[in-house]
Amino acid sequence: MLNVKSLDEALAICKTEFTSSTAAETVSINEATGRVLYMDISADEFIPGFDRSTVDGIAVIAADTFGSSDTMPAQLSFKGEILMGQDSAAAITPGECIGVSTGGKLPAGADAVVMVEHTEDYGDGFRYVFKPVSVKENVVLRGDDVSPGKLILKSGTRLAAKDIGALAAMGQAKISVYKKPVVGILSTGDEIVPVEEKPKGAKVRDVNTHMLFSAVKACGGEPLAFGIVEDNETALSSAMQAALPQCDMLLVSGGSSAGEKDLTVKIIGDLGTVFVHGIAVKPGKPTIIGSVNDKPVFGLPGHPVSAYFIFYLLVRQVICAMNKTNPELFISRGILGVNIPSNNGREEYLPVKRQGDGSSVSSVFPVPLKSGLITLLSEADGFIRIDRDCEGLMKGDEVQVYLF
Amino acid sequence: MLNVKSLDEALAICKTEFTSSTAAETVSINEATGRVLYMDISADEFIPGFDRSTVDGIAVIAADTFGSSDTMPAQLSFKGEILMGQDSAAAITPGECIGVSTGGKLPAGADAVVMVEHTEDYGDGFRYVFKPVSVKENVVLRGDDVSPGKLILKSGTRLAAKDIGALAAMGQAKISVYKKPVVGILSTGDEIVPVEEKPKGAKVRDVNTHMLFSAVKACGGEPLAFGIVEDNETALSSAMQAALPQCDMLLVSGGSSAGEKDLTVKIIGDLGTVFVHGIAVKPGKPTIIGSVNDKPVFGLPGHPVSAYFIFYLLVRQVICAMNKTNPELFISRGILGVNIPSNNGREEYLPVKRQGDGSSVSSVFPVPLKSGLITLLSEADGFIRIDRDCEGLMKGDEVQVYLF
Repeated sequence: MLNVKSLDEALAICKTEFTSSTAAETVSINEATGRVLYMDISADEFIPGFDRSTVDGIAVIAADTFGSSDTMPAQLSFKGEILMGQDSAAAITPGECIGVSTGGKLPAGADAVVMVEHTEDYGDGFRYVFKPVSVKENVVLRGDDVSPGKLILKSGTRLAAKDIGALAAMGQAKISVYKKPVVGILSTGDEIVPVEEKPKGAKVRDVNTHMLFSAVKACGGEPLAFGIVEDNETALSSAMQAALPQCDMLLVSGGSSAGEKDLTVKIIGDLGTVFVHGIAVKPGKPTIIGSVNDKPVFGLPGHPVSAYFIFYLLVRQVICAMNKTNPELFISRGILGVNIPSNNGREEYLPVKRQGDGSSVSSVFPVPLKSGLITLLSEADGFIRIDRDCEGLMKGDEVQVYLF
Repeated sequence: MLNVKSLDEALAICKTEFTSSTAAETVSINEATGRVLYMDISADEFIPGFDRSTVDGIAVIAADTFGSSDTMPAQLSFKGEILMGQDSAAAITPGECIGVSTGGKLPAGADAVVMVEHTEDYGDGFRYVFKPVSVKENVVLRGDDVSPGKLILKSGTRLAAKDIGALAAMGQAKISVYKKPVVGILSTGDEIVPVEEKPKGAKVRDVNTHMLFSAVKACGGEPLAFGIVEDNETALSSAMQAALPQCDMLLVSGGSSAGEKDLTVKIIGDLGTVFVHGIAVKPGKPTIIGSVNDKPVFGLPGHPVSAYFIFYLLVRQVICAMNKTNPELFISRGILGVNIPSNNGREEYLPVKRQGDGSSVSSVFPVPLKSGLITLLSEADGFIRIDRDCEGLMKGDEVQVYLF
């Protein structure tokens, strides 16, 4: 098999060859969750826009409260309340105070707020303060959160609720995000029948179309399924040429072993360029990386488990790169619960189950998985990586679990 | 303040009081990603449905290959190829072999497959085997993956690509999932203006509607925003009564401090029942938990950061419980990079940034965050929890980071 690469080499080739990104589109802030920011977002105003109280209480001049105590309260003339949202012209001078609510605007002259719990109202037009406050106590100053020009969110950020909050605070009702890469999915193989059908004889259901559809969605792509194509050159080549103009990337699963049916690599070569044929990784060896009309085309293994791993380890990096972002990655450390024998010189990814939720170090066990047994994969929490030169792992060894 | 509870007590109350779940609906397999399975899924057939080869090679009777070697190959009469997907009636008897591809059906009589790399074809109608195989070698047997009756996926599973693969393998083209809980979102406060507006004077933008909208979506709910309501009893009560029939849960943010504007708790009490008023947690103390017409109603703090934490720690548990599932939880361990002082007897959640991706133990630093400063929250990777009786944490202490 020519052009067999390590996974790292394959990733490096993808980085070099696939550099184009999708265009921008504008979405409303309520549609922006999970999308990837197209441009840096910097503040163009002060937030908050005014000095605010962080508690319910009375706005004061801090110096008026110095020395106050339970036995010697400070007596301040009460000048009324500032209502929430009210842009009052009220101001205080020494000896005076004004009532404010949490989030309310400080009156001119005030430099601190005393919590209502530390004051008393005897109905005589004064407020009595039993505890001193320092200057700026219980106050957020104008611009404490951001000032104009401050970079708030970087291009390439995958927007989560906390970021949406920041965008709302800055008045970004419409957000410029990368278009989702459209990822075409083709299944090949004369043995494949649609999922609705009961496979007869030597047929099997089309697992890969649906699994890849789901995986593309989960990493921020827009899947587009083109169905099942017969395993012959004319049919597959036509299907690929029909699919390519509709997508930014094409995944062809099945037909990528080194055997007689190896059409995918030939067709990619005829239509474009093959960069990699075969990756020295288990599972997933019969993987093809190529490009047609500058669009990435992957030939994925027909075995669902192998296709899943190659998608996870390789394809989703490329999908995310089209949005100039990185895949989400959750790594948990654990302790192997059993010995794992050598992998015979091929980099290996082993699906594992862990005990516990990762709050303490969990025990980790491989999910016994013959190639192709997709239902067992759904029991796995993630996988561990075994280096190609690793001579086996021992029970008790610490491992990193890459969580699905 | 009456009814102040710890967060654990509040969670326990939610568990007791809010027991109803949403109904089922049927979605196509390509729409099922991220949805929650309504029923257990058990297999009703054998997968694979036939004995399959896991390699390209020749199907043999293993005993025919015993003792073969490079110098003493076994000579087997070649009876042709079985094409992929072909339900051949071909069978072999001792001394014979048939060519099969990866995933192809084994002919009757065969009990193992020799990889093509370990055979030779000299064009004389035989295949020569240079390496013995054991019985069942390079073969997946009928039912090796699943047999009828085996439980494959449990009700309450949030479906990911690996599960979609398993469902496809079992022919589940339509999936029964829980309906997404519809979560109504109301913002109250006379100081709040829509995000599109530039706030003047003492006004601030409506951060919570959009942040909560995003957070509801991210945990599998269906958000429904009802906009901004004036901070008076008639308006808020009408708005809540109009919203409730349209949703399974209602979130009201703002108006939940213990101050004069504390309308939410009164209205919930008038319309239904208040279970909790105040949670002894920082940030997020002024939280209300109640129910109206058996629907959960939460009064969330007006401060976006506080609202975010209470959503994360409490509300999303209840949203997920309506689908009989649990929130996704990623925990990473880290080492504190600085000392953190005591929290004065209140359970505290501190947003933190970590160095690295968790593959090794990362250093963890708090994000300095005054209440309400939402843009700083977007810098955090997650949070750490500080027990109420903790007297401070030291630089070098190991902590658990709950990743956002």
